[in-house]
Amino acid sequence: MSRYDEYFLMKPADVIGYAKEKLNVFDADADLDCKEIGDGNLNFVFRVWDRKSSKSVIIKQAGPTARISDAFVLSTDRNRIESEVLALEGRLAPGLVPAMYGYDSVMSCCAMEDLSDHQIMRAALMQHKKFPLFADHITTFMVNTLLLTTDVVVEHKQKKALVGQYINPELCEITEDLVYTEPFNDYKGRNDVFPPNLEWVKRELYGDKELRLEAARLKFEFMTNAQALLHGDLHTGSIFIKADSTKVIDPEFAFYGPIGYDVGNVVANLIFAWANAEATIANEAERAEYTAWLETTIVQVIDLFRAKFVKAWDEHATEVFAREESFRDWYLATVLRDTAAVTGLELCRRIVGLAHVKDITTIADEAARLRAERLCLTAAKEYIKQRDGFRTGADFVRPFKGAAERFAR
Amino acid sequence: MSRYDEYFLMKPADVIGYAKEKLNVFDADADLDCKEIGDGNLNFVFRVWDRKSSKSVIIKQAGPTARISDAFVLSTDRNRIESEVLALEGRLAPGLVPAMYGYDSVMSCCAMEDLSDHQIMRAALMQHKKFPLFADHITTFMVNTLLLTTDVVVEHKQKKALVGQYINPELCEITEDLVYTEPFNDYKGRNDVFPPNLEWVKRELYGDKELRLEAARLKFEFMTNAQALLHGDLHTGSIFIKADSTKVIDPEFAFYGPIGYDVGNVVANLIFAWANAEATIANEAERAEYTAWLETTIVQVIDLFRAKFVKAWDEHATEVFAREESFRDWYLATVLRDTAAVTGLELCRRIVGLAHVKDITTIADEAARLRAERLCLTAAKEYIKQRDGFRTGADFVRPFKGAAERFAR
Repeated sequence: MSRYDEYFLMKPADVIGYAKEKLNVFDADADLDCKEIGDGNLNFVFRVWDRKSSKSVIIKQAGPTARISDAFVLSTDRNRIESEVLALEGRLAPGLVPAMYGYDSVMSCCAMEDLSDHQIMRAALMQHKKFPLFADHITTFMVNTLLLTTDVVVEHKQKKALVGQYINPELCEITEDLVYTEPFNDYKGRNDVFPPNLEWVKRELYGDKELRLEAARLKFEFMTNAQALLHGDLHTGSIFIKADSTKVIDPEFAFYGPIGYDVGNVVANLIFAWANAEATIANEAERAEYTAWLETTIVQVIDLFRAKFVKAWDEHATEVFAREESFRDWYLATVLRDTAAVTGLELCRRIVGLAHVKDITTIADEAARLRAERLCLTAAKEYIKQRDGFRTGADFVRPFKGAAERFAR
Repeated sequence: MSRYDEYFLMKPADVIGYAKEKLNVFDADADLDCKEIGDGNLNFVFRVWDRKSSKSVIIKQAGPTARISDAFVLSTDRNRIESEVLALEGRLAPGLVPAMYGYDSVMSCCAMEDLSDHQIMRAALMQHKKFPLFADHITTFMVNTLLLTTDVVVEHKQKKALVGQYINPELCEITEDLVYTEPFNDYKGRNDVFPPNLEWVKRELYGDKELRLEAARLKFEFMTNAQALLHGDLHTGSIFIKADSTKVIDPEFAFYGPIGYDVGNVVANLIFAWANAEATIANEAERAEYTAWLETTIVQVIDLFRAKFVKAWDEHATEVFAREESFRDWYLATVLRDTAAVTGLELCRRIVGLAHVKDITTIADEAARLRAERLCLTAAKEYIKQRDGFRTGADFVRPFKGAAERFAR
């Protein structure tokens, strides 16, 4: 019998005992220390390290409710999904996720590589750091984890088994509400709008009937289109980064959904970094240089994604109709259309919904923050309503860039 | 211990013993007889009756391979799906499916109401019988089993559980191949084309690049769009009918897919009856009268479906966006678009694919059969390629009627 044979929420001292008893990571005479380092909304994240050696490990445990609020009762099955998906993503996109050391279905925790030498990308972008390899890394991650889990590549019966394995009702419900519904009607009354922007939001979002229809259509596509195994939460807070390395973490929202959901999240969160830079870099030349890097990165994310997608399709497709070039081009066009729509949805929900991003909320000057929000929301409406017209990287920067040029500082 | 505690394929004598031991249907002193009456492609169907009373029952058992060919290895799980779906459909659409008496997971068989006083609808239509209540019955069945299992009505987490419960890889693979792929490229070399039609089919189907693209798009929608719990094989051979009663049977192909798949199957198989009547009723007035009834029935199937769909939506929708009338109208338009496409796919696959329909194959005169096939296939291409334009019942009869008027007898 072990005290870890029955589930309980661990404290750092428990995690040290757990690491000694259950993991084959540390030496027998290791002198372990542990700290809770999680800053996400759902789970507890512990770093365990040996004072005698350089060895360390991350242990992530799911509680029976969300960390931010006991009102979100969530199955600890999310930890199984996260563990299995990280292992699968590690096979499909080697080196682009943390290495997995184990998953414990009793304690609903998993052990993985410690990435303390990396930085959360959102924080790095707010420090206006550049990562020239990011577009290359993230597009490899997306093409490999997304296209290679579709019916284009995976034998169809096996793909249906994967769909069943990753049905994720509770986490999908969060997205359905927070991303696809509440930003457009505040039907649960829990939106959190920056007060100076409230009237504008009521008129331009809640009051836009056409926008609500598009949100409804997109919500149903999100709920019904079992296209690829998504990460499901691929914002810059789910990416650890350093100059030569990009690691995607936290795939607990994973399920079979539309590819554009992941790609659009990456684009939208680069736009938040851009809006932050617009608002917070006082020196004009520095600001121009950093926003130019962000613009180039967005263009590269789309254009590298397209090129790698076509290449991987031609190399790996097994579906007989995939040999029809017109089908491949149509399929990719629908992915880019969905990407544009999700770019707009994510821009909206992070500004008016329950879960904000620091890129925007840390803008101290009220007028500058208001401008940043309006830039994002104005562009967002164009990404959603005009989504059929997005084909190239240049197309994807145009709405935000255009808004930034039109809106006086 | 019972000999029915371990799976084996039953013969009629075994089924009598099974009915005595396992079912609470017959009296203790019943004098049972049994006959295998199945004429489908997959399963064994036994009728058991008591010579002393009027009581009878149907017992349906799934074998480890398809009945038509040991090459189709199929999980006997299809019998669970059929049993559970019949029970669910019986709750959603009372009186429109046979009553269920039980499901046996060991023997992979189920017991249900004997419908020997009904007739298989395809055979009845080939005898040129009319069923004035059919359009009303089948539209109630479709609206209740389809709309009421979508995200429009079902709580979204519960709907995802249903999606998982009815993942049906092997039966879906049959449809993906036979309906969505082989009619357009014969990639498995098992199409079965009426020889005088072979060159025409090669040119007009296999050689039509635009048609192949549309088939590919539709195939991926079939594989990924988890919209509603479909029957999955709703042709006139899956419907028992008499003047005042319609009973839908055989939902073993059930899974979460696009609503139009079921509706389009009904329309296409009414068109086969129409093509049969065109070819086999010599008397012009009789032919005109019967084809007019079929035409009216198709118009009613679409128009009653639309009206009941809107009514059921307004009564039962729980999704918050469902209050947007423009969303409801858009959603219904996509269902009718998918219905048109599947009408065309089913018309193609039953004429050129592996599994034909007797409506066509029993047309003895070669020229008349050739004309019937060309009418169906010419209309089929219009249903598929022009699918965005189908809104009303009148729209749905136009392609076949137009072809019948243009093609000389």
